[in-house]
Amino acid sequence: MAEIGIGLVGGGYMGKAHAVAMSSVGALFGTELRPRLEMICGASPASSDRYRVAYGFARAAPDWQTLVADPAVEAIVIASPQDTHRAIAEAAFALGKPVFCEKPLGASLDDSAAMVAAAQASGCVNMVGFNYIRTPASQYARDLLAQGRIGDVTWFRGEHTEDFYADPDTPGTWRAQGEANGTLGDLAPHMVNGARALMGPIAQVMAVAQTAHATRGGVPVTNDDQAQMMCEFENGVMGHLFFSRVATGRKMGYAYEIHGTKGAIRFDQEDQNAIWLYLAEGPEAERGFRKILTGPAHPDYLPFCQGPGHGTGYQDQIIIEARDFLHAIATGAPVWPTFAEGHAVNQVIDAARRSNATRNWQIVAT
Amino acid sequence: MAEIGIGLVGGGYMGKAHAVAMSSVGALFGTELRPRLEMICGASPASSDRYRVAYGFARAAPDWQTLVADPAVEAIVIASPQDTHRAIAEAAFALGKPVFCEKPLGASLDDSAAMVAAAQASGCVNMVGFNYIRTPASQYARDLLAQGRIGDVTWFRGEHTEDFYADPDTPGTWRAQGEANGTLGDLAPHMVNGARALMGPIAQVMAVAQTAHATRGGVPVTNDDQAQMMCEFENGVMGHLFFSRVATGRKMGYAYEIHGTKGAIRFDQEDQNAIWLYLAEGPEAERGFRKILTGPAHPDYLPFCQGPGHGTGYQDQIIIEARDFLHAIATGAPVWPTFAEGHAVNQVIDAARRSNATRNWQIVAT
Amino acid sequence: MAEIGIGLVGGGYMGKAHAVAMSSVGALFGTELRPRLEMICGASPASSDRYRVAYGFARAAPDWQTLVADPAVEAIVIASPQDTHRAIAEAAFALGKPVFCEKPLGASLDDSAAMVAAAQASGCVNMVGFNYIRTPASQYARDLLAQGRIGDVTWFRGEHTEDFYADPDTPGTWRAQGEANGTLGDLAPHMVNGARALMGPIAQVMAVAQTAHATRGGVPVTNDDQAQMMCEFENGVMGHLFFSRVATGRKMGYAYEIHGTKGAIRFDQEDQNAIWLYLAEGPEAERGFRKILTGPAHPDYLPFCQGPGHGTGYQDQIIIEARDFLHAIATGAPVWPTFAEGHAVNQVIDAARRSNATRNWQIVAT
Amino acid sequence: MAEIGIGLVGGGYMGKAHAVAMSSVGALFGTELRPRLEMICGASPASSDRYRVAYGFARAAPDWQTLVADPAVEAIVIASPQDTHRAIAEAAFALGKPVFCEKPLGASLDDSAAMVAAAQASGCVNMVGFNYIRTPASQYARDLLAQGRIGDVTWFRGEHTEDFYADPDTPGTWRAQGEANGTLGDLAPHMVNGARALMGPIAQVMAVAQTAHATRGGVPVTNDDQAQMMCEFENGVMGHLFFSRVATGRKMGYAYEIHGTKGAIRFDQEDQNAIWLYLAEGPEAERGFRKILTGPAHPDYLPFCQGPGHGTGYQDQIIIEARDFLHAIATGAPVWPTFAEGHAVNQVIDAARRSNATRNWQIVAT
Ligand SMILES: NC(=O)C1=CN([C@@H]2O[C@H](COP(=O)(O)OP(=O)(O)OC[C@H]3O[C@@H](n4cnc5c(N)ncnc54)[C@H](O)[C@@H]3O)[C@@H](O)[C@H]2O)C=CC1
Ligand SMILES: NC(=O)C1=CN([C@@H]2O[C@H](COP(=O)(O)OP(=O)(O)OC[C@H]3O[C@@H](n4cnc5c(N)ncnc54)[C@H](O)[C@@H]3O)[C@@H](O)[C@H]2O)C=CC1
Ligand SMILES: NC(=O)C1=CN([C@@H]2O[C@H](COP(=O)(O)OP(=O)(O)OC[C@H]3O[C@@H](n4cnc5c(N)ncnc54)[C@H](O)[C@@H]3O)[C@@H](O)[C@H]2O)C=CC1
Ligand SMILES: NC(=O)C1=CN([C@@H]2O[C@H](COP(=O)(O)OP(=O)(O)OC[C@H]3O[C@@H](n4cnc5c(N)ncnc54)[C@H](O)[C@@H]3O)[C@@H](O)[C@H]2O)C=CC1
Repeated sequence: MAEIGIGLVGGGYMGKAHAVAMSSVGALFGTELRPRLEMICGASPASSDRYRVAYGFARAAPDWQTLVADPAVEAIVIASPQDTHRAIAEAAFALGKPVFCEKPLGASLDDSAAMVAAAQASGCVNMVGFNYIRTPASQYARDLLAQGRIGDVTWFRGEHTEDFYADPDTPGTWRAQGEANGTLGDLAPHMVNGARALMGPIAQVMAVAQTAHATRGGVPVTNDDQAQMMCEFENGVMGHLFFSRVATGRKMGYAYEIHGTKGAIRFDQEDQNAIWLYLAEGPEAERGFRKILTGPAHPDYLPFCQGPGHGTGYQDQIIIEARDFLHAIATGAPVWPTFAEGHAVNQVIDAARRSNATRNWQIVAT
Repeated sequence: MAEIGIGLVGGGYMGKAHAVAMSSVGALFGTELRPRLEMICGASPASSDRYRVAYGFARAAPDWQTLVADPAVEAIVIASPQDTHRAIAEAAFALGKPVFCEKPLGASLDDSAAMVAAAQASGCVNMVGFNYIRTPASQYARDLLAQGRIGDVTWFRGEHTEDFYADPDTPGTWRAQGEANGTLGDLAPHMVNGARALMGPIAQVMAVAQTAHATRGGVPVTNDDQAQMMCEFENGVMGHLFFSRVATGRKMGYAYEIHGTKGAIRFDQEDQNAIWLYLAEGPEAERGFRKILTGPAHPDYLPFCQGPGHGTGYQDQIIIEARDFLHAIATGAPVWPTFAEGHAVNQVIDAARRSNATRNWQIVAT
Repeated sequence: MAEIGIGLVGGGYMGKAHAVAMSSVGALFGTELRPRLEMICGASPASSDRYRVAYGFARAAPDWQTLVADPAVEAIVIASPQDTHRAIAEAAFALGKPVFCEKPLGASLDDSAAMVAAAQASGCVNMVGFNYIRTPASQYARDLLAQGRIGDVTWFRGEHTEDFYADPDTPGTWRAQGEANGTLGDLAPHMVNGARALMGPIAQVMAVAQTAHATRGGVPVTNDDQAQMMCEFENGVMGHLFFSRVATGRKMGYAYEIHGTKGAIRFDQEDQNAIWLYLAEGPEAERGFRKILTGPAHPDYLPFCQGPGHGTGYQDQIIIEARDFLHAIATGAPVWPTFAEGHAVNQVIDAARRSNATRNWQIVAT
Repeated sequence: MAEIGIGLVGGGYMGKAHAVAMSSVGALFGTELRPRLEMICGASPASSDRYRVAYGFARAAPDWQTLVADPAVEAIVIASPQDTHRAIAEAAFALGKPVFCEKPLGASLDDSAAMVAAAQASGCVNMVGFNYIRTPASQYARDLLAQGRIGDVTWFRGEHTEDFYADPDTPGTWRAQGEANGTLGDLAPHMVNGARALMGPIAQVMAVAQTAHATRGGVPVTNDDQAQMMCEFENGVMGHLFFSRVATGRKMGYAYEIHGTKGAIRFDQEDQNAIWLYLAEGPEAERGFRKILTGPAHPDYLPFCQGPGHGTGYQDQIIIEARDFLHAIATGAPVWPTFAEGHAVNQVIDAARRSNATRNWQIVAT
């Protein structure tokens, strides 16, 4: 069983999730390559060392430059803020090292364009961290669509809603500042990716973004609290996407609803182990949305548990990502979602921003 | 207990519902005025007589003109197609008789404008049949909003979705022909009314309508299968409305979701006896959407049953309308929704049609 | 259209429900016999007259004897307390008049035995008011079972739970006194009837009853707050029934769950317009409980509404009963549930009481 | 950070789960002791080596005796069949090594009694693998009860239902043979433990067990497919437990419902990230079961994710167990559930078996 030395940049929310994933992915999925927790770094030498101890890495790096350059670091996971993504990825690719980067891909469209270019120039494995589309339920939804199980799709509605800023008295942090940290910048990428994964590319959008609460703690808020967009997919299907961080009561409202000529699918991440399927078959009297509990019959469930309905959780999505990343490295075959997907998502967000500014439909660049 | 002679035009889907409502509203609500099922008519003398027998009216009229003019007919209920609404209402108002008219109010904006004018000129009681907003649950939602129970509202999402045309092989009928019978014409009015009732007037809309299946049984479809609109309410709140008759799996998808700074409300007519309320109060650990079952503590429930959770149904909404209509007649005080509301709803639909044509935001005329 | 003069005893909770039902059943179901609200009486001449006015009856009777004897009263509906049921029914049968009696049938096993005997001796139509089993959903459940749609049944769980006495500080009324008003006496009959309707006769039971709160307002409570029984049906299937008036949070918890070799059914009256069906067919990945919304494809729904998912409510169950009662009279053919069913239910309750006393399994007498 | 060498017996369903848990628990919970995957064994040297490779252990043992005796193995996890539990545990305790043992504790009451004695004699840390009670939701349910949040409890209903044997044509394996592998032996322990954890000890039971399908593949089935028991807790509360492996449609039906004088709790493991709480406070109109999504405000959630509603899964329960086991070892303080709990659960099962045989209530031995 070959090993591979992992270098992890960032040890916060997602850094921890990736550290844990790299610890258990081998035992869980029996990967060809077994990750060795080689090196970790944070924003300072002190935090790097704290992370090393906490997550059980062999060594801490004083900064990401050192980490990327270290010869025992054979693959890089970027879990630091988006404005650091590009430089780290470019450095890694320059050294011919595979990179997994958290979403969104970079802090701007320029960033993601450059990152795709660097990845392609290097020929290295590259992936971006859209984890929600990887639950067994959402993977199964993709399968159902691919098989035409619900016929020709006629409508898609997606949302990513949370409520961490629902209370106007919640003081503003960096989250309330800067385009990249608003809902279009921060929350939208997951569901834009989801919509693309389920439906295919988005051709054009008509969007509105809104700052629901103009100030927080007396300080002006400079980005959007919620945004919606009507969209037309390249296949002609009409849809609607909504993003909000002020959606009181919603904790992890990554949810979608898809109508087809022969059936329909509904999903809500808040009950991630169920997918609702309606099939327009059999006697009318017996038709209804069925609540299917994920189990061994669905993608990527069995390694977590032999019993159906026993459920997977948030951390498990990150483990699935780790499996895919390692598999791509082991085989050399790219695994979706590559950086190209991360950039394509940014293109949709960019069109939405343009639309919000002009109050007109905008074509998504490709 | 004073009686009032009812004349009912139409004995189909809604005509029957109103006949039944007028039969039981007195016993149920103990109304001041007790309806006497005086006269009914359909599209032909034969159908009129059939309806008379079926619903237990005293007499059948050969046509609506006769019915409206009959001196024993003291109040008119219009449950015939929309292109008949205006003439009937105008004739009734000319004779000083109160009118209840099914939704939508008339077949066009001209119709509804004329009907409002005629109603106002006559000083007669006038109401329009927006029944869904009258369930105990939706009335309670209105109360919660009026009391500010969920704080300042930041988002409204509404839909009215059904699937009777989801199968492209379903042959086309009159429903597939003519603007007034498409989703904007036929399904949208209920939820536009609902949105207005819950949120207040809509200032502007950006809409798209779509014919999902271009032909039915070889015949071109000339109206829309689904439509969506982004909207801005007069109070500045952003929202989204969706209407569809091809929403596979949805049977009575009159549903809404409202976010406020202190709470949230969710409702779906398919489970009409429950309303979901989230309150951002108490310890975080105890917060969640609560499924409130309607009961005697909610508006207009008690007359139907002393026990909570025992439930009301579709027909009961029509009985509540009948109570309101009789009460308006008895007291002379107008009861919402009057014809003015029916016309205001048509104004929103009209703006949506203009927006769909121009692909631009359109102001709702008032 | 032939008329029939109805005499209604009682004008409280259920008296009102039957008055309303008799008012609208003709229009709704197009019954062969059209009820004429001939006479009503309550516990006193004053209340009788109040009911007459409120519900729109032609005449009030000073007492039930007068009502039963009146020649224009051609059918009797008993909606007065259970200790009055027997005398009224016997008087009516003696005059050859059909009787509909609210549940439970009489105040004791002696009562119901005598009432069955009187009914049979008279040859008159007789029915008992088990309304919950008559929703479109529960009728459909019966159909599914009868067709073997879920295979051989292996388990039945039923409950009837409410919470009107959940708070120990709720003062005691007559409800807290006397066996007939405890949960076994008052709540259990509906679900015992339901279990029998769905599963067939119960052979033996092992029951425990309990007074959760010994006193109310300082006064000793003399009946049970909750009771459970394990049961064995005549077909060998094992089951469990639970009844409670202290089930905090439950408002109308008439609910059941049935396992079969090829499927399963779940139902809860608190969402009476849905029935959950699991079928062990098709690919494993697509299996799940489907939430079927009642509609025209289900029993007794269409007369209430042409659209599926529009829903029926509590009052509608009573209208369905009225239709059945009138139909039995019109055709002379008995309609289930006759008094025999009411007595059979009482037999089960009696066995449960014996079991509770002896702490042993008890055979249900037949 | 101190390390501890783990020896794992068994590499099947649960062996894998514990291997994964030991791999990630350190990074996840920042445990004082960091597990080192020292040695693993299965039923044969070949399987031992296969497991070593698959799960990343340092060494494989030819048999459990070697593993237990190895000086680098400092703590033992038993995930082999129940008839092996006792010998392994006794050997480990004899060497003064802490033991975590999968449920049920041993294959018989004798086994568990001996194991408790051996554990106590040794003074070693001992735990048993009741994982379902450790979800954030169920831990929170325990907290709510401990705080009296729902008042005095009046009723408990629990079930553990699955459907892997629902189809009578499913061929019989070892699962269909022997008391220990029937529902009372295999499924019941989890929920008996759950009932005890939530409600306290069970005083007496009245149980029935049943073999729903007498043969499988022509071979007689020698254990029970389903069983139910009425029970009385030591605190006087009445309850009911049900266990089934033929509960068609149920995949992980570990579910409970608790009524109290001031509230109620409902939980179903099939939606493990939600707990339903009803509180009898505030205006009647606002009361309802609230669906609380687990989050950082609930026990043992935060280490898995900073965001509420993001969810934990089956594997995470095993990680929580590992944390507790390591913590007990590090501190020397016993962590519930110790072997004593495993034995107490077996006592309840034993009483149920006696009751099933005698058809009488049976006292639970202590
Ligand atoms: N896929 C998902 O579900 C989520 C993805 N994210 C994404 O993950 C990335 C990280 O976000 P969080 O973990 O939430 O942030 P965080 O603030 O919790 O952690 C950021 C980490 O980056 C480190 N860091 C900052 N600057 C650095 C530098 N110059 N060099 C090395 N390390 C540096 C910090 O020390 C810290 O450990 C972001 O791109 C974010 O958008 C965040 C949350 C959820
Ligand atoms: N509030 C609600 O939930 C619903 C409202 N509606 C509205 O109710 C109205 C009637 O629709 P439905 O009952 O579905 O139609 P329907 O086709 O079932 O019945 C129409 C009735 O009008 C009668 N009619 C037609 N032309 C007539 C004429 N010139 N004079 C007298 N009677 C005439 C027909 O004989 C028939 O009895 C429409 O305005 C429709 O939009 C319809 C369905 C639901
Ligand atoms: N099917 C169902 O869902 C329900 C059935 N019931 C049953 O309906 C029956 C009546 O119960 P409620 O309506 O709840 O009681 P209630 O107390 O609301 O009404 C009882 C009525 O009987 C009248 N009454 C009493 N003694 C009388 C007498 N000697 N002669 C004539 N009238 C007399 C009273 O004036 C009153 O109108 C009972 O048998 C009860 O078990 C009650 C509630 C629900
Ligand atoms: N907590 C939970 O949710 C669950 C607990 N269990 C319990 O876990 C234990 C193991 O069950 P499963 O993992 O399902 O069984 P399994 O059949 O999947 O695995 C059993 C393992 O034990 C090994 N084994 C058998 N005999 C052995 C011996 N003499 N020496 C060393 N290894 C031996 C086998 O090689 C195999 O790796 C049982 O006690 C069972 O009741 C099982 C499933 C779920």
